[in-house]
Amino acid sequence: MTPEEFRRCGHMVVDWVAEYMENVERYPVLSRAAPGEVRAKLPPAPPQDGEPFESILRDVDEIITPGITHWQSPGFFAYFPGNSSPPSVLGELLGAGLGVQGMMWVTSPACTELETHMMDWLVEMMALPPRFKSDSSGGGVIQDTASSASLCALLAARERASGGRSNLGGAGGGLIAYTSTQAHSSIEKAVRIAGLGSDNLRLVDVDDAFAMRPERLTEMIAADRAAGLQPCFVCATIGTTSSTAVDPVAAIGRVCREQGVWLHVDAAMAGTAAVCPELRGLFEGLELADSYVFNPHKWMLTNVDCSALFVADRAELIRSLSVLPEYLRNEATQSGAVIDYRDWGIPLGRRFRALKLWFVIRSYGIKGLQEVVRRHVALAEDLAGWVEEDPRFELAAPVPLSLVCFRHRGGDDANQRIMDRVNASGSMYMTHTRLDGKLTLRMSIGQRSTRREHVLRAWETIRRAADELG
Amino acid sequence: MTPEEFRRCGHMVVDWVAEYMENVERYPVLSRAAPGEVRAKLPPAPPQDGEPFESILRDVDEIITPGITHWQSPGFFAYFPGNSSPPSVLGELLGAGLGVQGMMWVTSPACTELETHMMDWLVEMMALPPRFKSDSSGGGVIQDTASSASLCALLAARERASGGRSNLGGAGGGLIAYTSTQAHSSIEKAVRIAGLGSDNLRLVDVDDAFAMRPERLTEMIAADRAAGLQPCFVCATIGTTSSTAVDPVAAIGRVCREQGVWLHVDAAMAGTAAVCPELRGLFEGLELADSYVFNPHKWMLTNVDCSALFVADRAELIRSLSVLPEYLRNEATQSGAVIDYRDWGIPLGRRFRALKLWFVIRSYGIKGLQEVVRRHVALAEDLAGWVEEDPRFELAAPVPLSLVCFRHRGGDDANQRIMDRVNASGSMYMTHTRLDGKLTLRMSIGQRSTRREHVLRAWETIRRAADELG
Repeated sequence: MTPEEFRRCGHMVVDWVAEYMENVERYPVLSRAAPGEVRAKLPPAPPQDGEPFESILRDVDEIITPGITHWQSPGFFAYFPGNSSPPSVLGELLGAGLGVQGMMWVTSPACTELETHMMDWLVEMMALPPRFKSDSSGGGVIQDTASSASLCALLAARERASGGRSNLGGAGGGLIAYTSTQAHSSIEKAVRIAGLGSDNLRLVDVDDAFAMRPERLTEMIAADRAAGLQPCFVCATIGTTSSTAVDPVAAIGRVCREQGVWLHVDAAMAGTAAVCPELRGLFEGLELADSYVFNPHKWMLTNVDCSALFVADRAELIRSLSVLPEYLRNEATQSGAVIDYRDWGIPLGRRFRALKLWFVIRSYGIKGLQEVVRRHVALAEDLAGWVEEDPRFELAAPVPLSLVCFRHRGGDDANQRIMDRVNASGSMYMTHTRLDGKLTLRMSIGQRSTRREHVLRAWETIRRAADELG
Repeated sequence: MTPEEFRRCGHMVVDWVAEYMENVERYPVLSRAAPGEVRAKLPPAPPQDGEPFESILRDVDEIITPGITHWQSPGFFAYFPGNSSPPSVLGELLGAGLGVQGMMWVTSPACTELETHMMDWLVEMMALPPRFKSDSSGGGVIQDTASSASLCALLAARERASGGRSNLGGAGGGLIAYTSTQAHSSIEKAVRIAGLGSDNLRLVDVDDAFAMRPERLTEMIAADRAAGLQPCFVCATIGTTSSTAVDPVAAIGRVCREQGVWLHVDAAMAGTAAVCPELRGLFEGLELADSYVFNPHKWMLTNVDCSALFVADRAELIRSLSVLPEYLRNEATQSGAVIDYRDWGIPLGRRFRALKLWFVIRSYGIKGLQEVVRRHVALAEDLAGWVEEDPRFELAAPVPLSLVCFRHRGGDDANQRIMDRVNASGSMYMTHTRLDGKLTLRMSIGQRSTRREHVLRAWETIRRAADELG
């Protein structure tokens, strides 16, 4: 494909995506493909000779599209949003075209410096603690996901707790991590990967609002110390996946300070809310955190993957992850005047992900991003009100942001049937969780183009499904 | 940005990329930006209001481009290639536009099934061991980098060696990993992350061609067993980063079989060579591997990130990485009829990376990919010949593929000066390694558009720099 052909085919793909954006509501939100259906349409062996781009794009329509669950549909209310946006897509396109690999500063200074700058912009625009900025002891880095980011935070905590021995094989024994019963599964995964083991993860009790009880944390830490174990890492959550519960970070942070334990805060979804000054109360106590992660690729219109990890002391993170072989040595690195992000995460190779975040922040401006958050929060409030007005339903958790957890009073089976029915309708996709042991429906209102009419239609669909329970 | 504006701006970005592809040779390959130069041109705070796309794209030209080290330049001979290609860029664009998150089959069946299918295609077209195919006990998965892939392989090995206790906190103690002194730094990083610790990584001696000595491996394993330690993981390399040394995988594999130790094979760069039947001798013994990684994002024209990890027994990998919370439960997963790739790697969230690999394989066809490999291998042979003809230079390692390691006979200082001078020329970028304790120049010939004239010009530039040593 020559540059000239790329130009022609590129325009075709841009037009394809523009049309997709215009028409995404026409597709069933949850793919109706059966297991194996997509593969059955693909030839078993790759072609010997190159094929024209037109036939590839035709197969996208005929084979791929029917197998897509449409995260970019305004009827997508499942899990958490995974927003793309027009400027973000263009940033990804440009990044792929430049094709730089930003493992070190020298391998593309702009890739590293724009990333540092965007992380500092995020601190600015969300009023995050100043020690997360690159001109202090800390700094930010883009990771693929909050799973990887939380793992890196745990590795730095492990290294600190072991007095530098964890990288030499002296760790693992007796290091204990804590998080609430409502924390994301990635915390257990990180604890396993880092070699602490699930047995050494303590799940702290929560209150009626599903937020961690700091006094229980204190007790558990004391019990572990009494047993000769070493508390090492606490993960608090601002906005749990299950119900957007908000742990009391300030109180937890005080416990961590007293105990000399690393505090990591996971706000993967909720983090974007901090662009709105009126929502910053949720983030109280964040200045006590050693590390913090939130995902612009959820609510900040930047397509996956773009997860922002901040640390208060970058030296601790780097110490836990840096290995410098001869073939990567270079003058800029030796000078100490530059950041090499390869030492801030697991992968060596890195895409130019800061571009899309830059495109998004500049295209929307702070006000544009605030508008999106405020719209979703208001819609969630509306929906929560409608739920409360219908005697067949009840709210199952507080609604601090844009996730509404509720259930039909008819029990698990009724809720399962409602969910299956609305998801089969094609007009919406929602998922569930379990709160207080009961199957609970989740409506996560966070897709960029979701407006009042979509939430209203979704609620009507749910009510109709309840009508049909018989 | 409306879909209509996206269309207009998208065409602008496509044209920008097409022009970049046409003109990439005009830029100095290694960026001339000084530390901080890019950031100094960026406003300290993000904008309140959205900005027009034209001004963003203007800043790309004025601020970003001068800070780029051009991995897509035919004069890029540094490190290893990080190839993009026109169809790959279009695949990335489409993937960003669809904006799906493929953490589980149900969250976009096409994302999962195309990935499985592409991994199977790779097994077919490269004649990899059949047990890496999804219709056997094994399978393939796309990871971001070989660093992450090798870490996952190690985690599965750790889980096997500990009899399933490693995830519960029973691992770490006494597990030993082995690789050669020439292995990639990501192996030590993985050993640290997984909690084994650098002290429990054994670096096995190499022969004159920098390939692992299997008899030394046998001795080290025996010594560790005698000391009450537990050998757990061996990483062999096909094509080391330093010099493309090829470990004797068949012999190493026999040792691993006898000893019941996991064999991982890292062919991050060299792996693509297996598209050419005449180069498959390098991969002898691969059928003994428990896991294997190579990077289509290096030599297979698929822009970073796209690393292919294969395992012979997918159940072992999944067991080491799976955590299933309530909010991710779904019928398809429960049925066992589908793959959920979230259990095959560290991140939960996943981009639709199979699209770009599909676009590349179909656009080039097997023959097109073979042409690229054969061209680069032939060019490396040419360059090696020219080095040998110039009495001032000597080859420093065998040239099995497309990397030529050589040095000026004048010593480290002369080689450093040559490298600095040619990299300052703007027409090329090369890096170094250290072999037998001596500074060694590396010319990695693997950029998609590199042809004979570029290698010839690079060699002339090097010779002129040698002339000027005085």
